[in-house]
Amino acid sequence: MAGPVQSIERAAAILRLLASGPRRLGLGEVAGSLGLAKGTTHGILRTLQNIDFVEQDPATGKYQLGAALLHLGTSYLDVNELRSRSINWADALAARSGEAVRLGAPLEGRVLIVHHVFRPDDTLQTLDVGALLPVHASSLGKVLLAFGNMPVEPAVEAGLEAYTRHTLVAPERLARALAEIRELGWAAEVQEMITGEAGIAAPIRGHGGLVVGAIGISGTVERICDSAGVPQPALVTQVRHAAQAISRDLGAARW
Amino acid sequence: MAGPVQSIERAAAILRLLASGPRRLGLGEVAGSLGLAKGTTHGILRTLQNIDFVEQDPATGKYQLGAALLHLGTSYLDVNELRSRSINWADALAARSGEAVRLGAPLEGRVLIVHHVFRPDDTLQTLDVGALLPVHASSLGKVLLAFGNMPVEPAVEAGLEAYTRHTLVAPERLARALAEIRELGWAAEVQEMITGEAGIAAPIRGHGGLVVGAIGISGTVERICDSAGVPQPALVTQVRHAAQAISRDLGAARW
Repeated sequence: MAGPVQSIERAAAILRLLASGPRRLGLGEVAGSLGLAKGTTHGILRTLQNIDFVEQDPATGKYQLGAALLHLGTSYLDVNELRSRSINWADALAARSGEAVRLGAPLEGRVLIVHHVFRPDDTLQTLDVGALLPVHASSLGKVLLAFGNMPVEPAVEAGLEAYTRHTLVAPERLARALAEIRELGWAAEVQEMITGEAGIAAPIRGHGGLVVGAIGISGTVERICDSAGVPQPALVTQVRHAAQAISRDLGAARW
Repeated sequence: MAGPVQSIERAAAILRLLASGPRRLGLGEVAGSLGLAKGTTHGILRTLQNIDFVEQDPATGKYQLGAALLHLGTSYLDVNELRSRSINWADALAARSGEAVRLGAPLEGRVLIVHHVFRPDDTLQTLDVGALLPVHASSLGKVLLAFGNMPVEPAVEAGLEAYTRHTLVAPERLARALAEIRELGWAAEVQEMITGEAGIAAPIRGHGGLVVGAIGISGTVERICDSAGVPQPALVTQVRHAAQAISRDLGAARW
């Protein structure tokens, strides 16, 4: 068997479809969205249902993601070396900075959050692990773009969505920002994804010095930035030190 | 296409294999474990790698679970109605009882933890979401077995593993315990999975009255039980009330 297995690719496309948008879809909607025949789609859905990757709502007959995916997803976290090597450093960074800490890795042209330490106060916060962030509007994503962990072209071709009026939507402005990030060694995002929120991130390097992920803090713009709207140098230093410590633990030589 | 799609079933078997045991396996190990030809296995692994369901370690060439599964797994949580309807009741139960609260649903003959509220103190705790518990040695699992949400026979046939000297390993004893649980309407587990730990759980019913999951508290045996080793009646009442409240939210008639 040489090429990719078509039915597995189609099954994955169905799962991705159910993970986005309305998340509960009928057979006709799944088949229509993917341009597949209903019979083919039904065979794949029934197989996915047998293995608990998909569940069918008894009342509506609509399909949704299944429980087996949750166990596989958390098993991925257990085996993820980037995450396991980062946990203690991320805790320390959250304690020192007083801000939420997140760790990102590239997935499907976006940033997958693989670890999240809550801001160390008693406010209600939602766990972001498993969420996907846009690359051009997050400090984690900009780091991954700037240091060659992800190609820029697909993001630009897909269109740079404007989340706020500060989002970098012009490809030239994004390119200039990435060049600056490469020079500085860290990235900031100031109200580019959510008004009132900002973030600072730095690259994590693995064995051989290749960037394998990014770590960053995020919080209200008043806390992350000074009165001129510039990221606080003390916080930048803390984020960079955490990234360097994790990189050393992952076997990257000092740079 | 009438029957199940074999290549999808094989892909799922590979993912389940990578989620258990050593978690990083070479091509020969995967093929050998599943009784598949190496060529077939390689074709499936390459396809799984293309869709980010599997990653290959560049240093060793071994395969492990991939990042796309994390996003699918957390997307499953977003769409899970049992969990979304339970979140507020689980928070309230943790606050009232002072214990950790977990919500379980059946998966592959075990109990999948779909929600976990930490014990409301400052101790370090690990998130159990996505973990699988044995059915016969957990209060959540005994509830699912007793109320017909899961068949008992496969668990018995697989062998009732002894986690402690209190685990119910004799099928007759388990059957008697399940009959008692059905009569009482709730289940306890006292040092049957971990020495020094105990739990209390009650069934959650969905539309039509069918049991769709279980909610329970767990903690040290000194806190969960009285000095005679019997679960504290006040805690049992709190767990049962939470389960009934969630059942009402899910559309179960009062019973």
